[in-house]
Amino acid sequence: MLPRLCVLVALVCGLVSGEPMTCRAADNAPQKFVLTSATTNQQIGHFELTHLDVENGGDIPWRVQKKTLHGGKQEGSELITVDNGKLQIVIVPTRGMNILEVRSGDVRLGWDSPVKEVVHPKFIDLDTRGGLGWLDGFNEWMVRCGLEFAGHPGKDVFTTNTGDRAEMDLTLHGKIGNIPSSEVVLIVDSEPPHRLRVRGVVYERMFFGPKLQLVTEISTVPGSDELTIEDVVTNQGAGEQEIELIYHVNYGAPLLEEGAQVHVPAKRIAPMNDHAASGLDRWNTYAGPTPGYIEQVYLVEPISDRSGQSLALLRNAAGDRGTSIRWNVEQLPYFTVWKNTTAVADGYVTGLEPATGYPYNRRVERAAGRLATLDAGESRTFRLDFGLHVGTEAVEQVAGTIRRIQGETQPEILRTPPEMPDTGDE
Amino acid sequence: MLPRLCVLVALVCGLVSGEPMTCRAADNAPQKFVLTSATTNQQIGHFELTHLDVENGGDIPWRVQKKTLHGGKQEGSELITVDNGKLQIVIVPTRGMNILEVRSGDVRLGWDSPVKEVVHPKFIDLDTRGGLGWLDGFNEWMVRCGLEFAGHPGKDVFTTNTGDRAEMDLTLHGKIGNIPSSEVVLIVDSEPPHRLRVRGVVYERMFFGPKLQLVTEISTVPGSDELTIEDVVTNQGAGEQEIELIYHVNYGAPLLEEGAQVHVPAKRIAPMNDHAASGLDRWNTYAGPTPGYIEQVYLVEPISDRSGQSLALLRNAAGDRGTSIRWNVEQLPYFTVWKNTTAVADGYVTGLEPATGYPYNRRVERAAGRLATLDAGESRTFRLDFGLHVGTEAVEQVAGTIRRIQGETQPEILRTPPEMPDTGDE
Amino acid sequence: MLPRLCVLVALVCGLVSGEPMTCRAADNAPQKFVLTSATTNQQIGHFELTHLDVENGGDIPWRVQKKTLHGGKQEGSELITVDNGKLQIVIVPTRGMNILEVRSGDVRLGWDSPVKEVVHPKFIDLDTRGGLGWLDGFNEWMVRCGLEFAGHPGKDVFTTNTGDRAEMDLTLHGKIGNIPSSEVVLIVDSEPPHRLRVRGVVYERMFFGPKLQLVTEISTVPGSDELTIEDVVTNQGAGEQEIELIYHVNYGAPLLEEGAQVHVPAKRIAPMNDHAASGLDRWNTYAGPTPGYIEQVYLVEPISDRSGQSLALLRNAAGDRGTSIRWNVEQLPYFTVWKNTTAVADGYVTGLEPATGYPYNRRVERAAGRLATLDAGESRTFRLDFGLHVGTEAVEQVAGTIRRIQGETQPEILRTPPEMPDTGDE
Repeated sequence: MLPRLCVLVALVCGLVSGEPMTCRAADNAPQKFVLTSATTNQQIGHFELTHLDVENGGDIPWRVQKKTLHGGKQEGSELITVDNGKLQIVIVPTRGMNILEVRSGDVRLGWDSPVKEVVHPKFIDLDTRGGLGWLDGFNEWMVRCGLEFAGHPGKDVFTTNTGDRAEMDLTLHGKIGNIPSSEVVLIVDSEPPHRLRVRGVVYERMFFGPKLQLVTEISTVPGSDELTIEDVVTNQGAGEQEIELIYHVNYGAPLLEEGAQVHVPAKRIAPMNDHAASGLDRWNTYAGPTPGYIEQVYLVEPISDRSGQSLALLRNAAGDRGTSIRWNVEQLPYFTVWKNTTAVADGYVTGLEPATGYPYNRRVERAAGRLATLDAGESRTFRLDFGLHVGTEAVEQVAGTIRRIQGETQPEILRTPPEMPDTGDE
Repeated sequence: MLPRLCVLVALVCGLVSGEPMTCRAADNAPQKFVLTSATTNQQIGHFELTHLDVENGGDIPWRVQKKTLHGGKQEGSELITVDNGKLQIVIVPTRGMNILEVRSGDVRLGWDSPVKEVVHPKFIDLDTRGGLGWLDGFNEWMVRCGLEFAGHPGKDVFTTNTGDRAEMDLTLHGKIGNIPSSEVVLIVDSEPPHRLRVRGVVYERMFFGPKLQLVTEISTVPGSDELTIEDVVTNQGAGEQEIELIYHVNYGAPLLEEGAQVHVPAKRIAPMNDHAASGLDRWNTYAGPTPGYIEQVYLVEPISDRSGQSLALLRNAAGDRGTSIRWNVEQLPYFTVWKNTTAVADGYVTGLEPATGYPYNRRVERAAGRLATLDAGESRTFRLDFGLHVGTEAVEQVAGTIRRIQGETQPEILRTPPEMPDTGDE
Repeated sequence: MLPRLCVLVALVCGLVSGEPMTCRAADNAPQKFVLTSATTNQQIGHFELTHLDVENGGDIPWRVQKKTLHGGKQEGSELITVDNGKLQIVIVPTRGMNILEVRSGDVRLGWDSPVKEVVHPKFIDLDTRGGLGWLDGFNEWMVRCGLEFAGHPGKDVFTTNTGDRAEMDLTLHGKIGNIPSSEVVLIVDSEPPHRLRVRGVVYERMFFGPKLQLVTEISTVPGSDELTIEDVVTNQGAGEQEIELIYHVNYGAPLLEEGAQVHVPAKRIAPMNDHAASGLDRWNTYAGPTPGYIEQVYLVEPISDRSGQSLALLRNAAGDRGTSIRWNVEQLPYFTVWKNTTAVADGYVTGLEPATGYPYNRRVERAAGRLATLDAGESRTFRLDFGLHVGTEAVEQVAGTIRRIQGETQPEILRTPPEMPDTGDE
């Protein structure tokens, strides 16, 4: 099918970019495919590549597709689907390289939000509804919150052009999840195991404000049931820059169900507010869909193994399906469990959230000493590995690892929300 | 012309959607044509169909066209024109299935707004200018206000993700008129009278907020001088949902002119504010274009006939051209007359507005008991029939019907604005 | 290359506008080329024309190109490059006919903003960050601030639909720089010197608000090192309208460097705030890139020559490269020097700003008597001529002209910021 693909790609490229292009897929198996580039002014609306289309793509059938969505608020949103032969990973370059979902057989990483479309950022107003506009597009499995700020909306100070400190309204979970990617490249390793890498660059930058670059690589090995996100955040400004980054990773049915559990090795666990405190005894067990349920949020200080890695598991009630997140606690020292087991129609979901801090307003995070800062030119790397685990044995193996990391340490359970630090507010 | 059309449509479909499509118009007279679908990822940028292009389209020449607009703030906005042989109805799927105008000979339903372009929602910020951003795109004959809220901007309470009641800034006339349609289908009845139906689905939904679906059908019979809007609003959330819906139907020249009149059978009529009270004696007669005119708004409790229908008429000074709205007062129990007979350059216009309430802020509407609510899963239907009436006899016939509905009832005329209900505000 | 161009243009036109078009470039040298038109529904995504493509285009090689940008926040932004054989002028019709940069050999009019992409207005929210959202797209050489308001964000009064005076939040530098052009035409003079003119029309208009039209013509003579901006702003509303217009013209390296100077004939010079007052003695000399530098702004009342023209010069340290702005002080009676010699990564830049007033909030400008108003239907013209000057002699010639305009007048230097006028605020 290469020739046909080639003609189609060349046709689409030429029309979209307004400039003639050679068809990369027609070359002698190039291993790098530019899908979007603000630098070279390219935007490929439709793309398809399989292990047969490249010279050193390996023997395991895989396929990468890109398409553009239409209708309603998803007009113009783009999706890249990486099918590694076992997992189908759906990436949203138009929305900051979020991941819409991952499917594998009867397991799905993702959830059913009342927001059904992949909302294009041009239809998002983060400031609306008292700073909750982010919720108009919230439906992904994995959405990054950040980078200048994340967490709850509300007032915080910033420096204006005149050097004065002024108040601004922070918006829920920041901007990065609603910024279209400037650069997107597909890379196919020529060497076994022929890892498939989708690399994106997203800029959160302005004049008199942050100049932050996110370079993300979402990758997977053909035939495996794992994927990796490796992000590098760089301060391209000339001054120190505060950052926040929450990996808001969300799960609904079928993994989430009555009796599903979350496991994570913990030094300390605290309820985020009084309402969460009332459900503290069941903090790691889930209810079924419960109309009128009000979210309960738990703040976890995770324990790591000797290499600095921590590990969280979400498993279904039967314990025969599960998914795990492995991350480095030096990179992401905090972990939040967001329980929102409301009615299915309202979005039955839980969020597991490795992060640089907790989802309080930045004012609180700063006062609590949980804000990260980047010096001029400094970069910080964040890596997360996600696994799907099918069968009781596979699930139990992850649970056992978590128990080993927990070891003899008894988690301290705070019965009441942490005291709010002094933010200097009157 | 079918073969040429077919090639063009197939070409455009293929390019826009990125996927090859069969040309529906080339089939054996299919009666349903998908113009937009978020579900099946279709967006037809250009479309044309006539009574000759379908097998059972009837003998009366009609034509439906779709095109995409360019330039300024209308870049990307789409228009569907339904020409039933007598009326040309111009629908804006990109703006919530509003209707830009209806033309028939020398009569026009519509007006000349200072906003000349069909503004794409991506250029609208409803929150700007103290919540008056809606005015940046306001130029249609018929625009729905709603669905979560309509009417004046200002503070009201809502429920946050944490279950708390917080204040939010409502924006003028809500969101539904600035949301692109997710699904748009043209349906041609195979049975006489071969009614032409443009059906659209628009979603006003978010996480931690309303999950409302509007299914609208705008339809007309070939050769007739009537059109019908039938809307079904459904609460797809799991909890009770307040809704507001105002049909903001606007008229300028040539129907609106000095001496033009509005007729509506009324139980009670009240001025909306003191300024309107000062013009109460002329509430149903219009001035010519008056530079510096400040809007005057009148609140009407309409009377219905035995079948529940009410009827409003706008007629020109000579009484030989008119247009009517027929609606069910159980569905839409309130009716507002918005007089804005300012200079032509500033938008000489009147609005006739059947609605679930009055255009006060939702806080006021709630306190006054005029807010509608939908239970989980509940739907509510709204139907309006619009007619054009040419000639003194035709106009007088409608006026006579309105007099018969009014009957012996003397409308109560309030000389002062209604007392504001207690909203619980301090 | 004409035939190939013709086919390409026709193809693109046909696809983008959805309608077949004749290829203008294939005609017998037409001199007017529509690139965008909301009136006739045209949008040419790709365009190219040279002196060889028109009959009376002259002998000096020139080229005009239009392309559409892709990737990140510049997706869909358009650029028109006018290469007059000596200058390359890059116009952004999508952003209110701003000018991104002008290049000529080793001289550049422009700067290196941390905002690298030509941000499409659909991604701009002017109200965000306390009204500083304009900074998300700020990277042009020349951006107009206005038209309803310009300058600092903050509260000011306006008239609502009900005739009441209410407060609204003005946003930094207004809207005109983020409104896509409704009409864009390229005109090639048939008569020598065959001036190339790009004419654009941008509307800042709404219902219950301003109805302002900007017609701009950006023009240059093939082979010259000058360009002219001639703007006509018209109040298309029926009432008096306040306007503000600042030509925010920005320069970075290589012209801006340590020891660079600005020259302008001045009656009076004042620092905008206390911080600027502290640097008053060096108000017209620039520092090199200085991390942490806080902007310093100087307010200048310019002197004109007998014909009403004033002239400003920015020259490099060696005095062998310079650029000038010539304008009429009746049209633009005020001039602001914005010094922002911060680190290169943060945007090392100076702005020279002929304007109708100073960049205070409109509330202040009104109270100080610096607001311009347009009667109903009234137009006001603004013309600016820009020159590049290479070589010590050429630069010195401009400096000499400025000295002659200054003449014997000693500029009054205010040591402290001007007293704030009484704005009626409590």
